[in-house]
Amino acid sequence: MSPSTAFPALANGETVFTVPASTIKYGPGALNELGDDAKRLGITRAALFTDEHVVETEPLKTALDALQAAGVETVVFDAVKVEPTDDSFRIAAQFASEGSFDGYISLGGGSVIDTAKIANLLATYPDDLMAYVNAPIGQAKPVPGPIKPHIACPTTCGTGSETTGVAVFDLVREQVKTGISSVHLRPALALVDPVTTESLPAGVIAATGFDVLTHAIESFTARPYRTREKPALGARPPYQGANPFSDIGAEAAIRIGGEHLVAAVCEPDNIEARHHLMFAATLAGQAFGNAGVHIPHAMSYSVAGLNHEYVAKGYENANPMVPHGLSVVINAPAAFRFTGPAGPERHLHAAAALGADISNAAPADGGELLALRLSDMMRATGLPSGLAEIGYTDDDIPALVKGSYAQQRLLAQAPCPVSEENLAEIYQAAMKYW
Amino acid sequence: MSPSTAFPALANGETVFTVPASTIKYGPGALNELGDDAKRLGITRAALFTDEHVVETEPLKTALDALQAAGVETVVFDAVKVEPTDDSFRIAAQFASEGSFDGYISLGGGSVIDTAKIANLLATYPDDLMAYVNAPIGQAKPVPGPIKPHIACPTTCGTGSETTGVAVFDLVREQVKTGISSVHLRPALALVDPVTTESLPAGVIAATGFDVLTHAIESFTARPYRTREKPALGARPPYQGANPFSDIGAEAAIRIGGEHLVAAVCEPDNIEARHHLMFAATLAGQAFGNAGVHIPHAMSYSVAGLNHEYVAKGYENANPMVPHGLSVVINAPAAFRFTGPAGPERHLHAAAALGADISNAAPADGGELLALRLSDMMRATGLPSGLAEIGYTDDDIPALVKGSYAQQRLLAQAPCPVSEENLAEIYQAAMKYW
Repeated sequence: MSPSTAFPALANGETVFTVPASTIKYGPGALNELGDDAKRLGITRAALFTDEHVVETEPLKTALDALQAAGVETVVFDAVKVEPTDDSFRIAAQFASEGSFDGYISLGGGSVIDTAKIANLLATYPDDLMAYVNAPIGQAKPVPGPIKPHIACPTTCGTGSETTGVAVFDLVREQVKTGISSVHLRPALALVDPVTTESLPAGVIAATGFDVLTHAIESFTARPYRTREKPALGARPPYQGANPFSDIGAEAAIRIGGEHLVAAVCEPDNIEARHHLMFAATLAGQAFGNAGVHIPHAMSYSVAGLNHEYVAKGYENANPMVPHGLSVVINAPAAFRFTGPAGPERHLHAAAALGADISNAAPADGGELLALRLSDMMRATGLPSGLAEIGYTDDDIPALVKGSYAQQRLLAQAPCPVSEENLAEIYQAAMKYW
Repeated sequence: MSPSTAFPALANGETVFTVPASTIKYGPGALNELGDDAKRLGITRAALFTDEHVVETEPLKTALDALQAAGVETVVFDAVKVEPTDDSFRIAAQFASEGSFDGYISLGGGSVIDTAKIANLLATYPDDLMAYVNAPIGQAKPVPGPIKPHIACPTTCGTGSETTGVAVFDLVREQVKTGISSVHLRPALALVDPVTTESLPAGVIAATGFDVLTHAIESFTARPYRTREKPALGARPPYQGANPFSDIGAEAAIRIGGEHLVAAVCEPDNIEARHHLMFAATLAGQAFGNAGVHIPHAMSYSVAGLNHEYVAKGYENANPMVPHGLSVVINAPAAFRFTGPAGPERHLHAAAALGADISNAAPADGGELLALRLSDMMRATGLPSGLAEIGYTDDDIPALVKGSYAQQRLLAQAPCPVSEENLAEIYQAAMKYW
């Protein structure tokens, strides 16, 4: 593989970073306080977004009981599509617009939380969905101001969407994943109750857990904020690159994930490990919402988008697909081998935090040790051995590269420039890890 | 000294903790963005609070230029009293009430930031100051709702007030330190520009820097949140005890302080070290605003309150007094020797983060190693060797204990019960460290 070269620090580079506020409540039993929190935020009539699976579960009952006890009138919308589309967003927005709600609650994975964000936005400031979508696909109209309070209650330990101002969807006619970003989309409260993860199949914990880990490791190894040029007043990008604040949360999430992810997947009764992972998810969400993610995520969209036949462990009841976390982590060992030379100490530090033995290692070994430790964890949790096992061959690489090279917004966060040739080499290296 | 015994974990104890939101902007040059941030928060006419020293400095000019460039009309109030009193708060509130301001800016140390919080509160929801003051001294009336946006710009690396919802003052007629706490007092933005610390005397860096360190170590060693009983709905205290979130920020602040505090004080040209310390201050502020501080802070109020003759290094131009950070850290080594047995691993972990060599150490050595490392740092930065050097004798101990035992709200955060006898023993041990 061609060696990667880090972006240089700039003489007149960025000196400032920001940490946007996320109010978080974490702990087993937190969901019992949902009604009280809704009332405190002034919500009297809530739209509760969820999906057809979560609607059948105990956490939904807990949420509704808490809302009722607090006297918050609640209407449930359970038609959220997993991996939402422009159409599914529009249907949710229609529901929101007609319901005269003064607040929103989401209970589910990232799809549910993102759908609630957009329904809230379009009900508060009606416009066509594409008006707000990131350029160049949409018109990138700024969200005009605060939207209604939204309490996001994640039920998987993956997305971190509960602390971000981002909502992602598939724009079906153009076959791309895109989204809307605004500080105003950030939920008023992230209410994280790890009890919600206790009934998830092990395969779902694996896929979402590795999403957490990649959020954290990509944030930690992202292009450092000081290598960007100082922006014009008010023009600092939301994804600022690795900075001292995101580093702290990312490192903690890597450490917790390294310690607990394998146990959370392989030991069905290890509730404690699942709880730890859920806390790591929130930390990693805050970190990547601030720093950004890069190559493994950029590469994931085409891995998921081009394969509609794979049935992952834990997802046997869903339509065939590559779950998001799997589509990301499957690229990660190869990607970190590529980025290693662009930040040797950081990669070594991440490897150590993840649990690799780095005694006798030099910084130059960082990328390799990180990749090895990560692929060992993937193997230990029963993940496929690489893209080949998911069903890809070398012939698919050009199409995979085309999709990921289009994700320039993410690739720009990598610690080194990334060419189409680099992406092809990384996909090639990701075919089979063991 | 009597051995301390930790509070036990409760079978039906607390399971949940919260992380309140603080929006932070950090970095050299951040103050140049003040006007843009004020405008973004909707401020058109601002009251800028500062003190007679800061008003003469470059940072004030930077702030005013930035506000003017953004078209924000600004009126300066520079009569903030260092260590504010009920009277000085009332005078500031009078100014605020008469000025028709739609936003507040504070540029200074904790006294300035706290004064702006209270002026904002009393101008927005007029009432007698004592109505809002913590019980039993005041009537503890809840702050009715959001107050005007406040951008807090600290110029010392001590208090962390820029991320807390607390304002502290001396109630002169009762000779006690007390305050007002509310989520609504939390500044809308903590704008932390470490350039503001570059011209501070070394003694001020020492006093405020050790305040940072004690915030962080006290948060890290505070009573763990799970040892509290689960509160009634909505009754969770703002100081929740050590929890996984506060631990992460506190540990990072201890590590940064351990690495850079001595250099920041002893090497006048080490700007980088001062910048690091300013970042640690914000981390530590967030941690203790969430977890709480305990014995060293509880003991500090009488140390400062009973001595009006001491002239600390760096404070030669002020009235004689024991600067806050010094009044805290002077108790800290003795206090951590006392709390060590109540959380041996935590104390050992803190000692290591602070830079102590813990190879060959057992957890039982934690308190001692932490105390030693801290007193070594105090000595290296030219701090007095104990309470005796400040002017206290054994005869003063009963009065010192009386003042600190009254601080039950803080003592309740200690990891073990604290009696008057314990406090007397700790003051005794703090008389002379070397």
